[in-house]
Amino acid sequence: MIRFNSDYQEGAHPRILQRMLQTNLEQHPGYGEDECCAEARAMIQRACEAPEVDVHFLVGGTQTNFTFLAAALRCYQGAVCADTAHIAVHETGSVEATGHKVITLPQRDGKITAAQVDECCLLHFSDGSHEHMVMPKVVYLSESTELGTVYTRAELTEMRAVCDKWKLWLYVDGARLGYAMASEACDVDLPFLARTADAFYIGGTKQGALFGEALVIVNDALKPDFRYVLKQKGGMLAKGWLLGIQFSELFRDGLYFELSDHAQALAMRLKAALTEWNVPFLVDSPTNQQFPVLPDAVLDALAEKYSFSEQQRVDATHRAVRFCTSWATQQAQLDALISDLRALLEA
Amino acid sequence: MIRFNSDYQEGAHPRILQRMLQTNLEQHPGYGEDECCAEARAMIQRACEAPEVDVHFLVGGTQTNFTFLAAALRCYQGAVCADTAHIAVHETGSVEATGHKVITLPQRDGKITAAQVDECCLLHFSDGSHEHMVMPKVVYLSESTELGTVYTRAELTEMRAVCDKWKLWLYVDGARLGYAMASEACDVDLPFLARTADAFYIGGTKQGALFGEALVIVNDALKPDFRYVLKQKGGMLAKGWLLGIQFSELFRDGLYFELSDHAQALAMRLKAALTEWNVPFLVDSPTNQQFPVLPDAVLDALAEKYSFSEQQRVDATHRAVRFCTSWATQQAQLDALISDLRALLEA
Amino acid sequence: MIRFNSDYQEGAHPRILQRMLQTNLEQHPGYGEDECCAEARAMIQRACEAPEVDVHFLVGGTQTNFTFLAAALRCYQGAVCADTAHIAVHETGSVEATGHKVITLPQRDGKITAAQVDECCLLHFSDGSHEHMVMPKVVYLSESTELGTVYTRAELTEMRAVCDKWKLWLYVDGARLGYAMASEACDVDLPFLARTADAFYIGGTKQGALFGEALVIVNDALKPDFRYVLKQKGGMLAKGWLLGIQFSELFRDGLYFELSDHAQALAMRLKAALTEWNVPFLVDSPTNQQFPVLPDAVLDALAEKYSFSEQQRVDATHRAVRFCTSWATQQAQLDALISDLRALLEA
Amino acid sequence: MIRFNSDYQEGAHPRILQRMLQTNLEQHPGYGEDECCAEARAMIQRACEAPEVDVHFLVGGTQTNFTFLAAALRCYQGAVCADTAHIAVHETGSVEATGHKVITLPQRDGKITAAQVDECCLLHFSDGSHEHMVMPKVVYLSESTELGTVYTRAELTEMRAVCDKWKLWLYVDGARLGYAMASEACDVDLPFLARTADAFYIGGTKQGALFGEALVIVNDALKPDFRYVLKQKGGMLAKGWLLGIQFSELFRDGLYFELSDHAQALAMRLKAALTEWNVPFLVDSPTNQQFPVLPDAVLDALAEKYSFSEQQRVDATHRAVRFCTSWATQQAQLDALISDLRALLEA
Repeated sequence: MIRFNSDYQEGAHPRILQRMLQTNLEQHPGYGEDECCAEARAMIQRACEAPEVDVHFLVGGTQTNFTFLAAALRCYQGAVCADTAHIAVHETGSVEATGHKVITLPQRDGKITAAQVDECCLLHFSDGSHEHMVMPKVVYLSESTELGTVYTRAELTEMRAVCDKWKLWLYVDGARLGYAMASEACDVDLPFLARTADAFYIGGTKQGALFGEALVIVNDALKPDFRYVLKQKGGMLAKGWLLGIQFSELFRDGLYFELSDHAQALAMRLKAALTEWNVPFLVDSPTNQQFPVLPDAVLDALAEKYSFSEQQRVDATHRAVRFCTSWATQQAQLDALISDLRALLEA
Repeated sequence: MIRFNSDYQEGAHPRILQRMLQTNLEQHPGYGEDECCAEARAMIQRACEAPEVDVHFLVGGTQTNFTFLAAALRCYQGAVCADTAHIAVHETGSVEATGHKVITLPQRDGKITAAQVDECCLLHFSDGSHEHMVMPKVVYLSESTELGTVYTRAELTEMRAVCDKWKLWLYVDGARLGYAMASEACDVDLPFLARTADAFYIGGTKQGALFGEALVIVNDALKPDFRYVLKQKGGMLAKGWLLGIQFSELFRDGLYFELSDHAQALAMRLKAALTEWNVPFLVDSPTNQQFPVLPDAVLDALAEKYSFSEQQRVDATHRAVRFCTSWATQQAQLDALISDLRALLEA
Repeated sequence: MIRFNSDYQEGAHPRILQRMLQTNLEQHPGYGEDECCAEARAMIQRACEAPEVDVHFLVGGTQTNFTFLAAALRCYQGAVCADTAHIAVHETGSVEATGHKVITLPQRDGKITAAQVDECCLLHFSDGSHEHMVMPKVVYLSESTELGTVYTRAELTEMRAVCDKWKLWLYVDGARLGYAMASEACDVDLPFLARTADAFYIGGTKQGALFGEALVIVNDALKPDFRYVLKQKGGMLAKGWLLGIQFSELFRDGLYFELSDHAQALAMRLKAALTEWNVPFLVDSPTNQQFPVLPDAVLDALAEKYSFSEQQRVDATHRAVRFCTSWATQQAQLDALISDLRALLEA
Repeated sequence: MIRFNSDYQEGAHPRILQRMLQTNLEQHPGYGEDECCAEARAMIQRACEAPEVDVHFLVGGTQTNFTFLAAALRCYQGAVCADTAHIAVHETGSVEATGHKVITLPQRDGKITAAQVDECCLLHFSDGSHEHMVMPKVVYLSESTELGTVYTRAELTEMRAVCDKWKLWLYVDGARLGYAMASEACDVDLPFLARTADAFYIGGTKQGALFGEALVIVNDALKPDFRYVLKQKGGMLAKGWLLGIQFSELFRDGLYFELSDHAQALAMRLKAALTEWNVPFLVDSPTNQQFPVLPDAVLDALAEKYSFSEQQRVDATHRAVRFCTSWATQQAQLDALISDLRALLEA
């Protein structure tokens, strides 16, 4: 079985494990107050060209999202996002469990627009009964989105303007941020993000780390006391240096970007092949998640050798599925997939 | 200014105030453990033909909804409702503030169908990642709905079957339950509701009481320890007998039904008049809330003398608005409204 | 049965019911945005000599406490109070239910001292692991306390200084504020409180209203958006003017203070009688709650005719109990109690 | 600097890292539904002699505690524990953040007794106002405690009986369970715990794993739907097999017990030395945490070469501190500590 159903199915880049092994019996202070975290933090600040940002390391994405939102929101405020957003659908109501409504807007290709957020806020604040409704306060975006699409600089700049207009925080879930930035469709880089968002996280789990997400807090108003929330929500890893090690390896010599480029190149090869065979897509994704629409017969045969994610039924005989490439996908694995897919489609 | 914008703009039926006055200096035990509450409880049990139901008295509707839902749901469960539902839109995220997601389904005339709930549950429980999503556990309906429409016995019976199939609780928000039951379009009565729902509340605030809602808990599994939740959520009125007095007056000699009939008759007169004049409606409401679509000019002129609620803009020159009648609306007030409306429409 | 077990066992001062009756069919805007609330608000601002304070009207004390605390605290902050405090013991964890720890300090006569709070904060903020503990942010006091004792101006001034030192909010639960201010032991008045606390509430339920508490928010930082929280927590009464009517009657012509003085005079008569008979007290209370320690035999006999609250067992044959006087206690009721007590003690 | 201040200052037992390295590029299903977790689960079930228990793997202790308690408690219920308990003091109110009160009882040597819990429940359930107080529902114990002390079989059996009497869940925090079981003072083993507690966790983070805690759910009533809560609270690690690997290595060939014995032997050597020198202890701890009371001068000199935790000031010139040994402590490190301590004490 070769697994293409997600991008978190292998361990970590060998360099990370190697360093863990080398430093295994060194003693460290706990809870992220160690030199490994300090080093990783400095590397991320440099990569963001933003020496003043705060960087916190957490274990997973769901945890990072609800911890940040719990810290950023007052009890009557909510987060605005696409109705396909991870926090809206696939985190078992973790944001609501901290007391906050997730306010969904209809997505298009997994994205929402500045105009939608503007209208949402206009409706809210101009309503005489606005105190009877949850106040929008955070815009939550994913880069890339659940459907593999990306926000451009122009789109994020517009969103920033709407956030300024209505005094919202702009937060970007970057579980797959590297894969997004590796795409030609995406002109966003870390310095731009650090100038534009109030906070965002750089995903590690899906991008070459064993586990871990680096939350970057840009806006000074969101910085104080964050470590209290981190501890309360279970996100302060006792052996915090394990996160420091991982992110410093990822950001040393550009490994993070290199791994992202690798996944991107493979995804584009798959996309090109499918396109050449006239296979339609659920959405035109420019990143490491590809959503072709394939005949049930092809998929059923394919499933004997490959795993992939079911996305949705399209018609009586076709389903949209998801193939992910990742930092760990091997050329040979992709070659095999492409070859088998071609054979099945031609059969 | 004559107010038609809601049905909670006057005090209480005089009989209620009279009894408060008469018993004012009598001493009572606190927190709803008094004889007035016992009497009201017994009267409601009789009206429901269900001597075994629990009846708790709370002050307001938002409070009743989130208190019941907090008691009924485990931390990973949510309530399914129409996207126009009061808990989804107009309670400032009070359900989320107790930790629970409100799962919305697209409404039609303010209602959702058993088929929609069935599909929602099927999607949830058949999904391999269902543990990553909030489990649907309560179906929340309003009788009548935010748009004045009603659920029939047939519809509620179907919804009950779906709830049984998926082990959901069926909960009915009856802020305007009397007005619903007074409508010819609604064949539901209290005994039916007590046989069909797991819990529901009989609204007092909009139906002739100063304030107060009577929560009826039918299902034995939902009964234990409810008073703890009542206290925790601020719903246990110190002078609980004030609620007992109000509900015993409302249910003595059928006053509750009589007041509902009064509002209904007036609403139907307004509806008939508007229909006669070919005024379109946003929705065909058979109850005390009417939503005509009227020219801006008419509404602006009308607003000098009457208040009504803005519902939504329909086109460049027309808006849908809401007129409510209530137990307190006087014939002369409605006559004036109809007469002025006619004059404006003819002008 | 004559009830002395609490101060919320009768309805309301007749003037309040009278005005409700007179205005019963007048129409009002909902949710506290009416002229009755505006009038009551202005009267309270005048009584506080503080025209700039915000005043919100809620239905009950538990609700007022958790609503204010939810609005004032970030998710990692807690409220510091006596281990006998109402929020710590008798509100079914309503503060915790909004996500916040109640940090208790050992009480003495129901009170805590500025020195205790200072030490608590010193321990917290000087601890290297302070992020692993809940940050103290509100000091919660009751005036008068659960044991009938009072804080003096000197004590509150000291507490204010400690709050300033550690950036805490000072909040005073005034469920029995009038009874406290009526005591010779208490030199606090409303203007002092409005200069000293960040927020406090003036109790209505136990002080002559049918129900209702007036929350006074002094500190500008706590004012914005409070009505959102009010709605979310179920504290925004639909017919808000009912609260406005009650507080404007209570503050018209000094009725609130007159009723408090009445209860105070009766309590002092009871205390004097018990003292004269050498009955010991659990605590030396200068207000309307008295806690004598009496032989079981006396209490058992007394219980046939009077109700009182059990406070705690003192030894094998004695219990401390609570007698409350209130705005509604009649001279004759107290005379009867004193006379029967004397007879039983002499027997 | 040699660190004795805690038992989570090194990485993991080399066997664990070795296996991570070997399996690094193998592909696994996510979220704990893989063969490594299945293997570890089976090994723990065998070690517990309880094939029917559920075993879930989480990343950290705070997370495990609040996730279990959120799953076990209804909104009006709380957890009873020592006032020194980790959940009461050092988890930033994480339990309260899920809505539940932590009900503290005065500790003795870090422990509470069955008699205390019995009295707490008696007071609660016999109080006429019990609905105004949080219902005790879980007893939370730590084995070993914050002060290194242990509960014996006799004590846990008594606690079990009280839990049965009052229908409480018995939950044991086993962050240092191995170290406890390695002590001669502790006659508890895993099979006993699996017969006696309703749930407990076997700590990995402090016991030789990189990170990870294995939650064992014994009582059938607590098993359903736990994975929903796991996901919601951020405890469902994407690459769950990393936890499976760690626990299967720890439970293969008794490594977990061997590592615990190692730490225990070193701790007892330190204790024996200190005892021989007549150094008093804050508490007589039979496990890997030792709390000697030492002169400030000695500690200040020692601090140049060793780290240890500050526990509390004892008098003007003495402080109690904590030295931890662990699976990773080397004989030579302890020898150095003992030798330097002796020299300083003799100076």
